[in-house]
Amino acid sequence: MLSIFFYPKSIAIIGATADPKKFGNAVTTNILKNKNLTSKVYLVSHGSKEIEGIKTYKSILDISDEIDIAIILVPANIVESIVDQCIEKKVKGIIIVTSGFGEIDEEGKLKENLIVKKCKGAGIRVIGPNCVGIQNTDIGLNASFIQTPPYGEVSMISQSGSFGCAVFYQMESDVIGCSKFANIGNGVDVSFNDFLSFFVDDENTKIICIYLETISNGRRFYEKLKQITRIKPVIVLKGGKTTTGMLAAQSHTGSISTNYKILKTAMIQAGAVMCENVSDFITAIKTLSFLAPPEGEDIAILTNSGGNAVFLGDNVDEFNLKLAKFSDTLKEKISPHLISLVQKINPLDMIGVADEHHYYNVAREMFEDPGIDVVVGSVVIPPFLGMESDEHFRGLIRAWNETGRKKPLIPLFLFSDGFVELKELAKKEKVPIFYTPHEAVYAINLLLERKKFLNHKSNPQEN
Amino acid sequence: MLSIFFYPKSIAIIGATADPKKFGNAVTTNILKNKNLTSKVYLVSHGSKEIEGIKTYKSILDISDEIDIAIILVPANIVESIVDQCIEKKVKGIIIVTSGFGEIDEEGKLKENLIVKKCKGAGIRVIGPNCVGIQNTDIGLNASFIQTPPYGEVSMISQSGSFGCAVFYQMESDVIGCSKFANIGNGVDVSFNDFLSFFVDDENTKIICIYLETISNGRRFYEKLKQITRIKPVIVLKGGKTTTGMLAAQSHTGSISTNYKILKTAMIQAGAVMCENVSDFITAIKTLSFLAPPEGEDIAILTNSGGNAVFLGDNVDEFNLKLAKFSDTLKEKISPHLISLVQKINPLDMIGVADEHHYYNVAREMFEDPGIDVVVGSVVIPPFLGMESDEHFRGLIRAWNETGRKKPLIPLFLFSDGFVELKELAKKEKVPIFYTPHEAVYAINLLLERKKFLNHKSNPQEN
Repeated sequence: MLSIFFYPKSIAIIGATADPKKFGNAVTTNILKNKNLTSKVYLVSHGSKEIEGIKTYKSILDISDEIDIAIILVPANIVESIVDQCIEKKVKGIIIVTSGFGEIDEEGKLKENLIVKKCKGAGIRVIGPNCVGIQNTDIGLNASFIQTPPYGEVSMISQSGSFGCAVFYQMESDVIGCSKFANIGNGVDVSFNDFLSFFVDDENTKIICIYLETISNGRRFYEKLKQITRIKPVIVLKGGKTTTGMLAAQSHTGSISTNYKILKTAMIQAGAVMCENVSDFITAIKTLSFLAPPEGEDIAILTNSGGNAVFLGDNVDEFNLKLAKFSDTLKEKISPHLISLVQKINPLDMIGVADEHHYYNVAREMFEDPGIDVVVGSVVIPPFLGMESDEHFRGLIRAWNETGRKKPLIPLFLFSDGFVELKELAKKEKVPIFYTPHEAVYAINLLLERKKFLNHKSNPQEN
Repeated sequence: MLSIFFYPKSIAIIGATADPKKFGNAVTTNILKNKNLTSKVYLVSHGSKEIEGIKTYKSILDISDEIDIAIILVPANIVESIVDQCIEKKVKGIIIVTSGFGEIDEEGKLKENLIVKKCKGAGIRVIGPNCVGIQNTDIGLNASFIQTPPYGEVSMISQSGSFGCAVFYQMESDVIGCSKFANIGNGVDVSFNDFLSFFVDDENTKIICIYLETISNGRRFYEKLKQITRIKPVIVLKGGKTTTGMLAAQSHTGSISTNYKILKTAMIQAGAVMCENVSDFITAIKTLSFLAPPEGEDIAILTNSGGNAVFLGDNVDEFNLKLAKFSDTLKEKISPHLISLVQKINPLDMIGVADEHHYYNVAREMFEDPGIDVVVGSVVIPPFLGMESDEHFRGLIRAWNETGRKKPLIPLFLFSDGFVELKELAKKEKVPIFYTPHEAVYAINLLLERKKFLNHKSNPQEN
């Protein structure tokens, strides 16, 4: 039922303008930018007769064609009358971008409730108000005033538009991409549950992620999550965990206070991945975008940096995970690939001289070893001995590809976010890159938790 | 007494080679790369008659000039005989880069101890073995096989060479810089304490940071820190906090197990900044590189993103900090600069339309307000309304500069690490940039802790 928003045949932008200093212009140009968009676009404008070469209408009622969705950007005080026209026009969905409703005061809440009541009566669904809009990269629809994210398989529901915008910046940097995005704003009608229902059936959505500040019906949200998390991973970040955070959320989206600990416990029970901060949220998306859970829990680490081996060891303990014990067979097999100084223990510190071939040969043996379930390829990029900055990565990926990608490869390139050649390779090969030991071990922990959850699901005793 | 290492008049590289696949070549080229280096450089080589146009010597004993420091890169089995020659030559300091000593086995420990004993007898100090070398950007000395860091005022002692290398990558990215660097390796003679003593008196060193895996004499280290932290901030990261981490550290630098909790408590008591992970370590360096502690504890937040306001609120509570209550006077003063939708509460969410002028005007009022001690300028860079990506930053910096930089400015640009124009501005203006709410609030907490520590110092009752 939300497909009308993500795959509209026709769109009317009400409040379109040629003035580049207005959101009505930002949404218009974002939509028009994609010349391949098959949706018909109609502009309704008060002040601009023509925008980007397209003539405008004075009112949506002047458009003869049927309109699937109307995007409303007019000032708050005339939104209601515009909605009335949309009802008369029999549009199927409305996105109200305009702010100044329930997030401001009680009067605003009354106003938005009245609008929703009218729309419900007419069978029209409403996204917003107080939102940046929605996006669908599958058809090149950017019905929002923020930038278009890179194309991908992550669908996101965000209660903050600007957070969505920031996540898109990070997606660019982390070579991950977005399929569908919706900023729920005050969320007066179309809810998290509606989007979840839509995304779980959407074949271009592989992962669902949610930023939420409040939920109107916790029980229903819990039940919905429970149905969905067994099919697709749902990653949740909650803003407003503490008193001060919650106060800020109240003035942001008119959120109602919730007890975070109780909420978190329930969400985890429902199978969601709960992230404690924005960094882990990105790491979780990055992990689940590219990696499947391992068979078992035994981690092998190969590295060229003793320091990194130490940090990884610390993180492994902090997450209560465990390192594989190298078998004699494995030691024998990797031995010819190592210089004599190297001690054949886990983490395997091949020291600074290790190059592409060391990484390839040793990682390959590890991927093939029955005692190992996850391989961490940890690198401090050597600025010496004429090594290429991405050669270790190439070695790791080759070993991973040649062994059929049967076990997760966790590439850790400490503080190497500035090396664009790594990112190009990651994009081409669909591999994540982690930049700190925490990120790498967080990723492993996440995969193991996901595995536990999925196994538990298939346990008949649970049903 | 360590000045001989950081300001040598003459250097002999023993084990220099023209083979680019050897560390002896990496150190040689790193040293020769800087044409302004005033230290005389002599190359001692077994196989190469000439390297980069410089003729080599067969032995250090063939050099007629006096030699301040010798850098040894020959294979482990002949290090001792080379050291004997250095003693005969009466060098003043020796850096042993070569690995294969105490970090490998008991035999290696005996070997390195014997070498140190000989050198001590001759009054020669030894750095290493098993190290990447040292650096001093003040004179352009890169006596190591890793890359030259950006120039700056942070001096670093690291027990891991590769971690130093990774930190340099991050320094580039975070627009911070290094004055002096030493990789202590197995640390058989010159110790953390020696470096601390030197750095505290070094006028180009503003901040000292340490990565350590083990300390041979905890009591002495504690006493030394206590003397120093009152003069310059010392930031400490400990690797090998847990059993698995410590096991990795043992094979890395032959470290002896320590109880992390006890060590941490002692270090904090001695006034050090203890970082729990590599990310906080960088944030701490970034913070103390550019910001001085505030007068009081009242934090004001201005932002264009409701989501960011919420995250910051959560972090403020998690760190047990407090937000300023805006006075009526302040509210009146900022009112003309805000659109009517904006609620005059802290965090102040000026919403997406806020541009350079909003940031400048409001931040200025905040910097001048007696009820505010720290200003967080939080931005999600707007990809709309024709705004420039660095205009909010410019507004914040102008307000900060015009009010005499009397209070810390905490610029938070959520997930905006990819915007190079921000970094250029940060470099020019000597301002930090934080990319997540955690980083920003961690920075404030750090400054407040530093302030508490310094105030406590001046309390006469303590003495």
